[in-house]
This record gives sequence, structure tokens and C-alpha cells, in this order.
Amino acid sequence: MAITGDQRLLKRINRMALVRLVRSRPGLSRADLAQETGLTKSTVSLLIQELIEEGWLRENEIQATGNIGRRPTPLCLNGHRLVVLGAELNADIVRVVVMSLAGEQLFEQQLDSPGEAPVEQKVRGLLDLLAEAVASLAPGQRNVLGLEVGVPGQVLDDDLVDAPLLGWHEVALGKLLRSGLARGPLGNVPVYILNNGDAAALGETEFISGEEAADPLLYIGLDQGISAGVIVGGRLLHGRRSFAGEVGHIQLLPEGPRCRCGRRGCAESCFGLEALAASLGCSMQELFARAQTEDPACMKQLSVAGKQLGMLLHNLWTVLDPARIVLGGTACRLGESPRVS
Amino acid sequence: MAITGDQRLLKRINRMALVRLVRSRPGLSRADLAQETGLTKSTVSLLIQELIEEGWLRENEIQATGNIGRRPTPLCLNGHRLVVLGAELNADIVRVVVMSLAGEQLFEQQLDSPGEAPVEQKVRGLLDLLAEAVASLAPGQRNVLGLEVGVPGQVLDDDLVDAPLLGWHEVALGKLLRSGLARGPLGNVPVYILNNGDAAALGETEFISGEEAADPLLYIGLDQGISAGVIVGGRLLHGRRSFAGEVGHIQLLPEGPRCRCGRRGCAESCFGLEALAASLGCSMQELFARAQTEDPACMKQLSVAGKQLGMLLHNLWTVLDPARIVLGGTACRLGESPRVS
Repeated sequence: MAITGDQRLLKRINRMALVRLVRSRPGLSRADLAQETGLTKSTVSLLIQELIEEGWLRENEIQATGNIGRRPTPLCLNGHRLVVLGAELNADIVRVVVMSLAGEQLFEQQLDSPGEAPVEQKVRGLLDLLAEAVASLAPGQRNVLGLEVGVPGQVLDDDLVDAPLLGWHEVALGKLLRSGLARGPLGNVPVYILNNGDAAALGETEFISGEEAADPLLYIGLDQGISAGVIVGGRLLHGRRSFAGEVGHIQLLPEGPRCRCGRRGCAESCFGLEALAASLGCSMQELFARAQTEDPACMKQLSVAGKQLGMLLHNLWTVLDPARIVLGGTACRLGESPRVS
Repeated sequence: MAITGDQRLLKRINRMALVRLVRSRPGLSRADLAQETGLTKSTVSLLIQELIEEGWLRENEIQATGNIGRRPTPLCLNGHRLVVLGAELNADIVRVVVMSLAGEQLFEQQLDSPGEAPVEQKVRGLLDLLAEAVASLAPGQRNVLGLEVGVPGQVLDDDLVDAPLLGWHEVALGKLLRSGLARGPLGNVPVYILNNGDAAALGETEFISGEEAADPLLYIGLDQGISAGVIVGGRLLHGRRSFAGEVGHIQLLPEGPRCRCGRRGCAESCFGLEALAASLGCSMQELFARAQTEDPACMKQLSVAGKQLGMLLHNLWTVLDPARIVLGGTACRLGESPRVS
């Protein structure tokens, strides 16, 4: 068991090292890579072939070197051709974006979707948007690597274990999406189901490297509820059962308002958008309107919420000492600075 | 830069994989290891030579296989010969232990050391204990791999940035110890300075593997102050400036007792041993005596402290979803179960 795990880890690390080397020094050949990594030429060839077939790398034109003998083939990243689909299934919306690995956004579209819609209805909406997204790409010009779906809840492997905001429990979301996709143009594209905070945290690191990269990175999503994602050592922090980052349920006020989880004074029950609106006796839409007109009761509530958010950030800082904190989510529209570095 | 980092990472991962393979399947040869890992035979030979020279691995007697040709040399872990020194520099004690890599404790000794003793005095005490420890080992029979020193404060590289409990700030502890050791039998043994919570967390994973290993692992040290160490993905979580795990300063009660950090209601100011003793108007020694005799005022305070510890554990759980929480420190003597799994 341990050995298989080691081998798998080793293969992943080796593939990652090869892609990184080619990304930072385009034009390296297989022989160069074997020398740089200490791997056998046959191992390098095998891994490079995989990476080319999956569309991560491509071979460049061979250049005349003036040397005698077979020319080594320079390799480079296949960034513009490779695209990833991102989707959000949330309480109020369903959204799809298409990004190239080079970081261009090629498509974005969203549907309003009522609060606790049945699973089938949201999934149908998502499949329609995905079909639109694929239709927008010139055929044969783009290589879809995968679909990542962010959901506001706890995800274990492919299944949504619990998403209180959607009112969904124990939904085999991966299976459901795959069978829906199998009938369309995306066929058996790899599907990854992620907690939305985790998905956002990954998004904040995926296209950032070198000096700009920050580790640990903490993403906090301020929406109806509060989500988070943590990157440590370049990887998502999952925890034992994928509960890591459930920071909406950090207790801030032992005598505070009752939370849906049963405790009192959780961050989410103090300043999640739903709790904020409830404390003002209005809807979430009205909350935004009242903030816009600087309604005094609303401003007072937001100032308290700001202090509580500060306490949450301080508490998370003591645990993680993050190199970067990114604040996201619709509540950012209530303030000015969506990004704190 | 990125390439050097990748190469170093790769080498470390490869060395680790080789040691793990040999640990889980003693008797593997260099050729077996090359096949298992996909590394070239020359890379494997080079790494194995290093690992043998550093005393991690040793060659076993060659067994007759009945096959023709040169016999492959079986490799195994050199666990009993290899020892590590562990030291604790704390507010009230200085302590040294010697452990073999096979997990036997070979030596333990401690000195009482008054609260805020000057750096030089504590370091001299530590050097004396270390000399005693080395003298206790049969000469030539043990190979000292390194010395790990745990301190109650923030450590950056080799320096103790801040240790409020010791009253020490900006102490070049690594340099100080190295120059003291250079004159003795340990010579230039590698020295690692670590936050004490981090050191304890590493200790909880170092000799545990397979089914028993837990990741993430959270260690919480309940002493005069509160320390913690977090293992994620097999490594210590350091954070950006080695502040990760400073969970004594998670705010539990926004209106709670004033903490030495300036905030109110930090975990440490609520139920650190010093705060507990202060709230009962007694010394820490008296606190233990009063708990022993089940003094009612003391028991009431301990019951509140227990609830607050529960809140701290809940909050840390939401962030990390640990697979194991280990409680340590002198405060465990106040309760019964030092280990919660």
C-alpha cells in the first residue's frame, strides 16, 4: 500500500517537475529533461508522451543547431490550445466560465436559479450552459482538459455530502454530471467536484507563479454563507474528511445568534449575508440597496460585521500565518477593497 | 531559481522515497529500487551512497540466492545506530533526551531553571546536559544525526524572534549553541531550532507510520502558555513568517481578560496555566495542589477552562479538519486523558 502511494506520488511529482521545467525554460528537449531531473531517458519519454497526449505540452519545430546527428526536439507548453471549464452551482446562480491555460477568459455566462431548486433543475441549467460554452469554442482549436464544479458544501471524492445553503444532502453530483455530459459534445471529460471556497483558492494560485505566488494562501468567500479554501505547500488543505476550511462555523461569540449548525455565534450566523439581512429584517437584495443609500441602521450593522470579520481573520492568521488573504464573494460589493494582501 | 528549487525538491522526494521503500521492504537492492522508482541506476547508487554515509541505511550481508552472477546487496534501515538529541528550553526547565531512530529512549535528564533566566545561563545548562547525554552513549556505537531544540516562541530560521515566556527577544540561538557545541564532543552536529509546539507535533509523527499515521495532525501544548504545531501533508505548517500555530492567541471572548499580546480573551489569557493561577490568586504550583485536593473554587475554574478548551478545539477543527488532535503539556496533569484521538 505504502509503496503504491509512493510510486503514484513520485510519478505526479515527476510529471509536475517536467511541466514546470518546460514552462520556465521552453525549448528543453527530452534529453535535457533527463539530465535535469536524473530520471532515465525512457521514463522521461514515457511521461512526455503522456503530457503531449493530454495536451499539456507540444513539440516545437526543430531548429538547425549546426551540430551533426539527430536534432533534439524542443518542447513547450501548449497553453492557448488547452482550456478548462469552471462552473459554480450556488444558492442563487449557476455560472460557467472557460479559461485557457494561458489565462485568457474565453466565455462567461450565468443563469439566475432560485434558492432551493431541486438538484435535477440546477444540473439541467448547468448542462445547458456548458453546451453553450462548448459551442462558443472554434471546433478542433481548443482542447478541453476538464470541468471543475464549485459547490457551497462539503465534498467527499465526487459526492456532495452536505450543502445546507442548497438544501442538498448526499447527492452523487459527479455521477449525475458525468451521465449528463456523456450524451453531449463534452463526452467523458474529467469532472472535478470541489467545495466552492476550495475552487476559488485554487483559482487564486493556478495562474500565479514565481514572486507573485503566495503560500499559505487563504481564500474567504463572503456570500449568503461563508466559505474558505486554504492552499498549503502548493496544495489544497482538505483535512481528514474534506471539512477543512469550514471557517463559517468558527465560534466568535459564545453567546451570539443561533447558527443553523446548532451552535451560537458562528461567523456565518454573525455576518453571513443571510444573517445580516435577517438582523435588519430585510431581504439580501434590500440589504445591498440599503448599503448603497447608506441607510444608518444598515451601516451600523455593517460596521459590527466588519469588526467580526476582522476577528475571524485574526483567528485564522494565528493558525495559518497566511502569506496572502483573498476576500471574495458577493458581500465584497458592500465594501470597496475586494482584495487584502 | 524555480529549476534549482525543483531539483532540490526532487532530490529530497527521491531520497525520502528510497528510505521509505527500504523501511517498508527491508532487503531491497539498488537495482530493485531503480526499478521501483523509475530512477537511473546511477542516480539510485549516488543517493544510496549518501544515505549510507549519513547513516540512514546500511548494507546487509549478501545472501546466497542460487542465481548465477554478482549478488545484489540487500539494504536496510540503520535504526539502532542512529540517534537524535532532543532538547527543551522552557520557562521553568531545561531538558535533554536521546532517541534512536528505532524509537528507543536512551537518555533523559532535566534541570530546574528559574523563570526569566538570562540566555547565557540557560544555554550553559543545556550544554552541560548535552555533554552528559553524549558521555552516556557508548563511544563509536551511536551516530548522532542532529540536535533539535524546542523553544516557546517564534523561530525564524535559526533565530528566536520572540519568546515572551522566557523574556527573550531576537536571540541568535542557533549560532550561540553551535559555537558552544563546537568546543565539545558534538563538534559541528546539525542543530535545528524549532517552536516547541512544532517540535512536539513532529515528535508525534516521526516514529509513526502506516495505519497509525494521521494527517493533518494537530498538537496542542497546554503549559504556562499555549503552543501548537500542525502537520499537513507530512510536513510542519510554518506559514509565511513561522507564526502558524500561534493558537494561544485565537480570540475566544471579545470581552475576556486582557492578554499579554494586547487583545482580550485570547485562549492563553483565558486558560493558560499562568492565567488560571492568576484568576485563583495563587501560584502555578498551588494550582496543581488545589486541583489535587479538589478545592471547589479551583474545580469551578477548571470546568470553565475545559469548556473554553473545547471551543478552541472546535474552532481549530473547522479550519484544519485534523485526523488526530494530541493534547500535551503540564496542564494535562490537571485532567486524566492526555491523548484524545
